[in-house]
Amino acid sequence: MSALQILQRDPGSQARVGVLRVERGEIRTPAFVPLATKGTVKGLEAREVAALGYDMVLGNTFHLFLEPGADLIAEFDGLHEFMGWRRPIITDSGGFQVFSMGHGTVADEVKGRAPAGPDRMGRVLQIDEQGVRFRSYIDGSERFMGPETSMEVQAKLGSDIALVFDECTPFHVDREYTARSTERTHRWLDRCLAWHDAHGPREQLVYGIVQGGVHEDLRVASTEEVAARPVGGIAIGGSLGAEKPQMYEVVGWATAALRDDDRPRHLLGIGDVDDLIRGVELGIDTFDCAMPTRLGRHGVAIAPDPENRWRVELTGARHKHSREPIMEGCPCPACSAGHSRGYLRYLLKNRELTGVRLLTLHNLAYLARLMAGLRAAIAGGTLAAHAAALRAGAAP
Amino acid sequence: MSALQILQRDPGSQARVGVLRVERGEIRTPAFVPLATKGTVKGLEAREVAALGYDMVLGNTFHLFLEPGADLIAEFDGLHEFMGWRRPIITDSGGFQVFSMGHGTVADEVKGRAPAGPDRMGRVLQIDEQGVRFRSYIDGSERFMGPETSMEVQAKLGSDIALVFDECTPFHVDREYTARSTERTHRWLDRCLAWHDAHGPREQLVYGIVQGGVHEDLRVASTEEVAARPVGGIAIGGSLGAEKPQMYEVVGWATAALRDDDRPRHLLGIGDVDDLIRGVELGIDTFDCAMPTRLGRHGVAIAPDPENRWRVELTGARHKHSREPIMEGCPCPACSAGHSRGYLRYLLKNRELTGVRLLTLHNLAYLARLMAGLRAAIAGGTLAAHAAALRAGAAP
Repeated sequence: MSALQILQRDPGSQARVGVLRVERGEIRTPAFVPLATKGTVKGLEAREVAALGYDMVLGNTFHLFLEPGADLIAEFDGLHEFMGWRRPIITDSGGFQVFSMGHGTVADEVKGRAPAGPDRMGRVLQIDEQGVRFRSYIDGSERFMGPETSMEVQAKLGSDIALVFDECTPFHVDREYTARSTERTHRWLDRCLAWHDAHGPREQLVYGIVQGGVHEDLRVASTEEVAARPVGGIAIGGSLGAEKPQMYEVVGWATAALRDDDRPRHLLGIGDVDDLIRGVELGIDTFDCAMPTRLGRHGVAIAPDPENRWRVELTGARHKHSREPIMEGCPCPACSAGHSRGYLRYLLKNRELTGVRLLTLHNLAYLARLMAGLRAAIAGGTLAAHAAALRAGAAP
Repeated sequence: MSALQILQRDPGSQARVGVLRVERGEIRTPAFVPLATKGTVKGLEAREVAALGYDMVLGNTFHLFLEPGADLIAEFDGLHEFMGWRRPIITDSGGFQVFSMGHGTVADEVKGRAPAGPDRMGRVLQIDEQGVRFRSYIDGSERFMGPETSMEVQAKLGSDIALVFDECTPFHVDREYTARSTERTHRWLDRCLAWHDAHGPREQLVYGIVQGGVHEDLRVASTEEVAARPVGGIAIGGSLGAEKPQMYEVVGWATAALRDDDRPRHLLGIGDVDDLIRGVELGIDTFDCAMPTRLGRHGVAIAPDPENRWRVELTGARHKHSREPIMEGCPCPACSAGHSRGYLRYLLKNRELTGVRLLTLHNLAYLARLMAGLRAAIAGGTLAAHAAALRAGAAP
């Protein structure tokens, strides 16, 4: 039985509204999932993220594995207790991060030793069927992560939803590489499921990850391979294309192949406003992305302005004298307190933490409302009109 | 008539509990005043500072003069509206900061040109009777601040309480220098009052600043000089000595000389727990200090531990496995949410904003409770016993 209860389907698209039930509670879907990469949504406390209306956050297996380590978090009874977030948590597998370290070398598969010594993300030393050996960016020590390691770490973190360890196939590789990489991802999927079956927490859902790059047959085949396993949900990962239309096409291949599958679907690393709207129409249930929090740290606010990609750069000189809030009528802590664009610009230009925080709160509040509005529209049978209004610049 | 209404005096000390009434509201005294140096209490929003129980914050004339500039803040109807803090604000005069730039050169008075180009705090170019010429640390431009400039900036900021422009006499200078410097501070006091009388906002209180270094006769004379003027309150500044006993002695000379003066007394730059207790006993009404917020940014929490100067270094390895809160029973956002020392240590070591914020909130909550307890003890006639318990390690 699927953990996702679908309450209503949109007649004009593949969108569905539902409730995803996991160990620690319920997630109203479709939902955006903020990143708590290193055990905190940057700058916010758990209670604030909950107050914004979020049901789930995403923890990062790779970073937490290196620091403070899964054993320490297990000692604190898992990630929920460690970070004081007692609602659902999904953990990524670490696959994306370990393969990101090897950018450029991944394409040639095992290229042998990269230059030693840690940089910002560490260094890949070797990639083979077993997994990935790399140097930690924390202390330069040699570490290993493979399918079993990833599942073991996620078991110790105690997340509600674990993602299997995959190779996040880069965009610039050829079809042949993508096909081989996707096949290995499927073999790793089986190893992850075997480990979890033998050792994993019963109550933890495990999502498989669809790869296959931008090749329709590979994507469809990967979707079918993953769906054929007893996974609790299906995540769509890897390269989704260079442009948004291609991304939508690639996601559509996967969700079309899952048309009769009621299990929850997660789209990895996507969070732009237009992408969330289209993703919902394509039948995605949950999304995660660094975008809203990262934009906030760089002084960019989300606003209902499609012509500027729903973005306002508050550090711009044109806001210096502005007494307007980021967005009229917005109930977020920054706008409802009456903070002006001029004040926020001043804070951001002077790198004051308060400015970063106010923008992070605004951006996450925006996406929470966007998703709540999309859920209400699906439930009310008005998704097409609602999506059209959003695309024309309506407030969420 | 004094803006301070003294409600009760402690029979065993010079302590007094009262209400200080200024344009934007009331300050319950004795009170600690958090620093909102650059238009924000670092990492917090105005509404959070109010929720901690603070009635007033301190804005920094020097920093706000340079960035974003007093004219811009005036355009936003003053500092209260600009930063969204609609309770009282006291602004320092900028004297401390411009003289801090010249550390080492101040002792020799006008030393001519210092090396050009801005560093972290800028550079003093010239100090004379008119004021101080210096290079801005923002853009290297040449700027000037004297008594009239300072008062004009504070008028534009629209603070409830302005401090006069003084020379903050350093500790390492001799008596002769201190005497001459203190005399100039008195001449500047008259110029500040004259400017304010002619141009300043009627509803803005102006505090004079007592100097005189660690010399009893100079301190007493300076106190009498300041008190003889029609100032709204008296601040005690400058070098207060190398050790705490000397600081208490120096402050005591000033407050003894003000024994029959009901005007509010502010002690500049003092905020350690033991100093606040002693300061209250010596008859101080308000205190400001970077300590609680700065300690928070450096991973140090305030706790009822007199043997360790009321400080806990949370980045220490001994907290790695600790599931204890910073302080049992503390109602602050960090402790009441159940965040463990282990989690806070992890956040702080990884420079997560969330950790800095939680410690800042805890430290300010601690001092707010400390001052509320002292006020209640004075009102209830139990200050001696309460202060003794605090010094023995009682919770605030």
